[in-house]
Amino acid sequence: MTDVVVVGAAGYAGAEITRLVLGHPGMRLVAVSSDSDAGRRVSDLYPALAGCDLAYVPHAQAVTLDADLVMLAVPHTAAMPYVPDVLARGAMVVDASADFRLKDAAQYERWYGVPHSAASLLAGAAYGLPELGREAIAGARLVACPGCYPTAALLAAVPAVEARIASADGVVIDAKSGVSGAGRTPSEATHFPSCNESVSAYKAAGHRHSPEIDQQLSAAAGRSVHATFVPHLLPSTRGLLATVYLRVAEGIDTEAAHAVYADRFAGEPFITVHPLGRMPSTREVCGGNRAHIGVALDEVSGTLVVTCAIDNLVKGTAGQAVQCANLALGFDETAGLTAYGPVV
Amino acid sequence: MTDVVVVGAAGYAGAEITRLVLGHPGMRLVAVSSDSDAGRRVSDLYPALAGCDLAYVPHAQAVTLDADLVMLAVPHTAAMPYVPDVLARGAMVVDASADFRLKDAAQYERWYGVPHSAASLLAGAAYGLPELGREAIAGARLVACPGCYPTAALLAAVPAVEARIASADGVVIDAKSGVSGAGRTPSEATHFPSCNESVSAYKAAGHRHSPEIDQQLSAAAGRSVHATFVPHLLPSTRGLLATVYLRVAEGIDTEAAHAVYADRFAGEPFITVHPLGRMPSTREVCGGNRAHIGVALDEVSGTLVVTCAIDNLVKGTAGQAVQCANLALGFDETAGLTAYGPVV
Amino acid sequence: MTDVVVVGAAGYAGAEITRLVLGHPGMRLVAVSSDSDAGRRVSDLYPALAGCDLAYVPHAQAVTLDADLVMLAVPHTAAMPYVPDVLARGAMVVDASADFRLKDAAQYERWYGVPHSAASLLAGAAYGLPELGREAIAGARLVACPGCYPTAALLAAVPAVEARIASADGVVIDAKSGVSGAGRTPSEATHFPSCNESVSAYKAAGHRHSPEIDQQLSAAAGRSVHATFVPHLLPSTRGLLATVYLRVAEGIDTEAAHAVYADRFAGEPFITVHPLGRMPSTREVCGGNRAHIGVALDEVSGTLVVTCAIDNLVKGTAGQAVQCANLALGFDETAGLTAYGPVV
Amino acid sequence: MTDVVVVGAAGYAGAEITRLVLGHPGMRLVAVSSDSDAGRRVSDLYPALAGCDLAYVPHAQAVTLDADLVMLAVPHTAAMPYVPDVLARGAMVVDASADFRLKDAAQYERWYGVPHSAASLLAGAAYGLPELGREAIAGARLVACPGCYPTAALLAAVPAVEARIASADGVVIDAKSGVSGAGRTPSEATHFPSCNESVSAYKAAGHRHSPEIDQQLSAAAGRSVHATFVPHLLPSTRGLLATVYLRVAEGIDTEAAHAVYADRFAGEPFITVHPLGRMPSTREVCGGNRAHIGVALDEVSGTLVVTCAIDNLVKGTAGQAVQCANLALGFDETAGLTAYGPVV
Repeated sequence: MTDVVVVGAAGYAGAEITRLVLGHPGMRLVAVSSDSDAGRRVSDLYPALAGCDLAYVPHAQAVTLDADLVMLAVPHTAAMPYVPDVLARGAMVVDASADFRLKDAAQYERWYGVPHSAASLLAGAAYGLPELGREAIAGARLVACPGCYPTAALLAAVPAVEARIASADGVVIDAKSGVSGAGRTPSEATHFPSCNESVSAYKAAGHRHSPEIDQQLSAAAGRSVHATFVPHLLPSTRGLLATVYLRVAEGIDTEAAHAVYADRFAGEPFITVHPLGRMPSTREVCGGNRAHIGVALDEVSGTLVVTCAIDNLVKGTAGQAVQCANLALGFDETAGLTAYGPVV
Repeated sequence: MTDVVVVGAAGYAGAEITRLVLGHPGMRLVAVSSDSDAGRRVSDLYPALAGCDLAYVPHAQAVTLDADLVMLAVPHTAAMPYVPDVLARGAMVVDASADFRLKDAAQYERWYGVPHSAASLLAGAAYGLPELGREAIAGARLVACPGCYPTAALLAAVPAVEARIASADGVVIDAKSGVSGAGRTPSEATHFPSCNESVSAYKAAGHRHSPEIDQQLSAAAGRSVHATFVPHLLPSTRGLLATVYLRVAEGIDTEAAHAVYADRFAGEPFITVHPLGRMPSTREVCGGNRAHIGVALDEVSGTLVVTCAIDNLVKGTAGQAVQCANLALGFDETAGLTAYGPVV
Repeated sequence: MTDVVVVGAAGYAGAEITRLVLGHPGMRLVAVSSDSDAGRRVSDLYPALAGCDLAYVPHAQAVTLDADLVMLAVPHTAAMPYVPDVLARGAMVVDASADFRLKDAAQYERWYGVPHSAASLLAGAAYGLPELGREAIAGARLVACPGCYPTAALLAAVPAVEARIASADGVVIDAKSGVSGAGRTPSEATHFPSCNESVSAYKAAGHRHSPEIDQQLSAAAGRSVHATFVPHLLPSTRGLLATVYLRVAEGIDTEAAHAVYADRFAGEPFITVHPLGRMPSTREVCGGNRAHIGVALDEVSGTLVVTCAIDNLVKGTAGQAVQCANLALGFDETAGLTAYGPVV
Repeated sequence: MTDVVVVGAAGYAGAEITRLVLGHPGMRLVAVSSDSDAGRRVSDLYPALAGCDLAYVPHAQAVTLDADLVMLAVPHTAAMPYVPDVLARGAMVVDASADFRLKDAAQYERWYGVPHSAASLLAGAAYGLPELGREAIAGARLVACPGCYPTAALLAAVPAVEARIASADGVVIDAKSGVSGAGRTPSEATHFPSCNESVSAYKAAGHRHSPEIDQQLSAAAGRSVHATFVPHLLPSTRGLLATVYLRVAEGIDTEAAHAVYADRFAGEPFITVHPLGRMPSTREVCGGNRAHIGVALDEVSGTLVVTCAIDNLVKGTAGQAVQCANLALGFDETAGLTAYGPVV
């Protein structure tokens, strides 16, 4: 069994990682950490995890424990202080924070407001989006998992850009996220009466996930490009839908565009590309580690419309982290992730 | 008092028109019609309208009654048979259906599947979006009110196009609507477990409101243009948000773009243009006849992002119909529409 | 015009009072107060109230302004310090807090944890539930409005108890409230992911509204009685439903029980008693100052089931406050309250 | 492997059974049936079940297939025609419909409107609520699983009645259910705008689950008793909360009442009895086969308040069916049911 420590396990992302590790056939959960909830039991904070009687320990204690795998779900800037030591102790690290996603430490400092304290690790960190590059993840010692927005946006945008059926310039990403993406800390924006029966854009063209999307889209394009990214807050707990608009290359019709996606993701265990005429809903991926994709083409204007639905806390966070850990550690990629989400 | 008949009053749009007419200081509701619910009382079908003891009569009976104003909220193709006679009897008509919105009868037939039976009236029908052209509505005998999608999309897109600060080509409209926009008839798509906790695109680049948006955007551009329009279904009863993406002209910065909207809608009783940095939510317009607009500019890619929030059944339907009737009949434009929506 | 000051206007209750005063034909809003949001404009905090450009002033300033009517929507214990001075200056007071509802100062101290600082005013304060006693309100200088739970519970329970068709002992009140009842301050319990897609009881048999319900139920019974009151939190913003269970007196059948309610509330402008077989929903009263009541009888066990639906922020708070002010000041009881809520 | 056929697999209950069978370590899904969706693939109707490429066959075909276990999730009255033949062929039957729950065929006819066509099987059918009687289920050939309302109501009521700490007379069950309990067929009541942001009672004291609750409560009481049962529809997809009110016996205090529940369910793998002061939410059981229980006592009136939260489609339907099948067939009782539900 692989001994696992989850750091930052009291937040939603960490609790979902906890849940998946508890159900993983090859993993054993040895510790969970939380600074704010240290001393409380998992099943007290999350009654859904009935039977898990581990108590949260402080982060600083958790990172010194013997473990084969340390999964971090602390906020950005809080992961990088721990990672070098954990790696030095020989554990594999899957980081669900933003700390090791950007390759350029200057970009990191610009968007997160502090210098990167472990910049030498950035080059070696694998970007944890298996369907767009699982080679780098297999055998990696440090995987930086993308968050929910980049996951859905990139799965929708990259195949067309890679296949050169659409321009990598002028890409528009209109993303809609459930409220759990904002985490467990109450705020005015996440107060039920504030966001229920409502939808609104926020941080239009200025969200922290934008440089990460650009970095990966540029890699696909082979040159530096920039996408316009506008997130919206939805009145649902879970679910994230990215609707991506790209200018299609001349001569590409609807069937050809669809075929690019169907071919690109053929055989992927966690991706469904719907037939033409069907668009995915976030409901159909809720609770599962899945990404469902729909393709349409506005042939009049030559605008390709690709939507990608994921569960923001599973394929968008915890499921992806486990999937990356599976790849890095040599498990079957789907181990611990085969449970179907609820049908409705 | 202006005697008003509401045709198609048992659907959501018609019931909201009924509600507003009941509260209008210069209007008297003389009849409401429904074929499917004929004989039932308004307060029985809609207990919120307690005290309104009118019973629904069949459409065919309602359109022959003496009235100064006939407001139609029947489905598309069901309004055009009645309108010529009603006009001939001397009543003014506000039509909330799609039947008189498109100027081109061939377009109508293409999108609605039947020939237009009153095509000679199309040229004279005023397009009922007062903030983008109230002159044509004042004194009109037939007003074709746009639906919720075109209202929000056009309020967001037209000012930039008119002012030539953005290209009229390549416009992308990503719209999100509450479920009440689908009307009162149950269906698989509107079944609570189907759409709750979910979001999805539908009729991507193929929705019936697309030609209407193009018609009005082309008028603003002074040439024929086409926008990509993708509607989404939201897990809320009311509210519609259009997020519009336009390629900005060179030399236009964020402040200049914002100023175009602030100036364009200065003094409008029902429109708020938020200061830079603030985007509207659908919650803040729920229940009121308002459109709230936010502006942002992605200066890296030159993409202008404009969001417009409305209540789909008020500014998107019934409120707009009353506003148009006010203009056409010489009432104060805000008569019957001054009640604030709930604060939360 | 009656000059009105709203104290505690930045919370949900105060903002709804603000909204209703703005639309009242005989009232003029002269000031709104908030300590936490002093200096901000109403339309900035509540964009739904577009056009209201008053800025919040501190409470201490607001209560010294010239006003004919001061409406307080501050939290419990925060109203009583202001009320004696405001009354002394000659203004009429409608208090939406709990401070003047209980007649017994010892009870107040027991449930609210502090001695009552204006206990001499308790005897003279009118209990502001017009349909169960409007005589005391007419001409009152101080009205203590009940909150949402007592309003719905008492409208459902009192008629049967008064008419002696049911026992005043063993009454069970199972109440379900939307989240806005918890106010505007974010908390773990009101965080969207906490309460969305969920329902739970809280403070079972120990809620602060319990003594107030008992006080009024005892008055109806003519002796001291106690009801079991269990509130629940619902995944909706607005709406409150009280389901009340009473043991029916022998010989009372379904029709007789229903007749008691229909007769008791006949002619009430804001109450609908549904015919047998129909139970009210909170949706049908949303946004209006209404209470809708349904009656059923379990003839096997002799249990009378009465449900009462209200909008917690209108009939449960702000609308009731305006209704009481209308009665106290000699306006038509329905002034400013005639707007219908949305049909859906 | 146990070969399983799911009859009525296209409805929500059947689809959840399908999902659980697909993940069961000892079961193999050999066929799924639907008359209305015959020919469609499971993954087409329920994209969440991606990878399940079985196509629905008609019921009449499914019941003739070789199977070790036939699980029925057809509507009431539709199961009884198939069961005798299926049993005769040697398969074990778990029936999630109401057809074999009532022991008294006359009662069945009274509530379901048709004579029972297989009444001779009623006496031998085990009532499938393991925590209140798993002995009868072990080894049974026909298990009649209770639905969501009786499951939650009985888990909350029976321990107090069995232990004689509360009267079996005058029990009140106020139950709140998510909309998925109404099934997959759209209707006016389940139309999103009808039930969103709303709560209402329905079939007060006249619901079909009432005789079933009475039957089991009477068994616990040792005499014929009747509980008042009032279901409510909640604006959530899943979740069911039963709030049960019982008159406590003299001398029983809060701790004693709580101890009865804690002792009764000690060691149960799927039940948590919360400590005093904590009440369960439906969110915490969503997606898992769990029942969470909270206990409070109104010591003034001697009213015991017990709430029980379940996921209506798991512990209320499909999970319970699998749990019963496990018991009947000799699997570990928790086989296929160990996956945790989402934490939020």
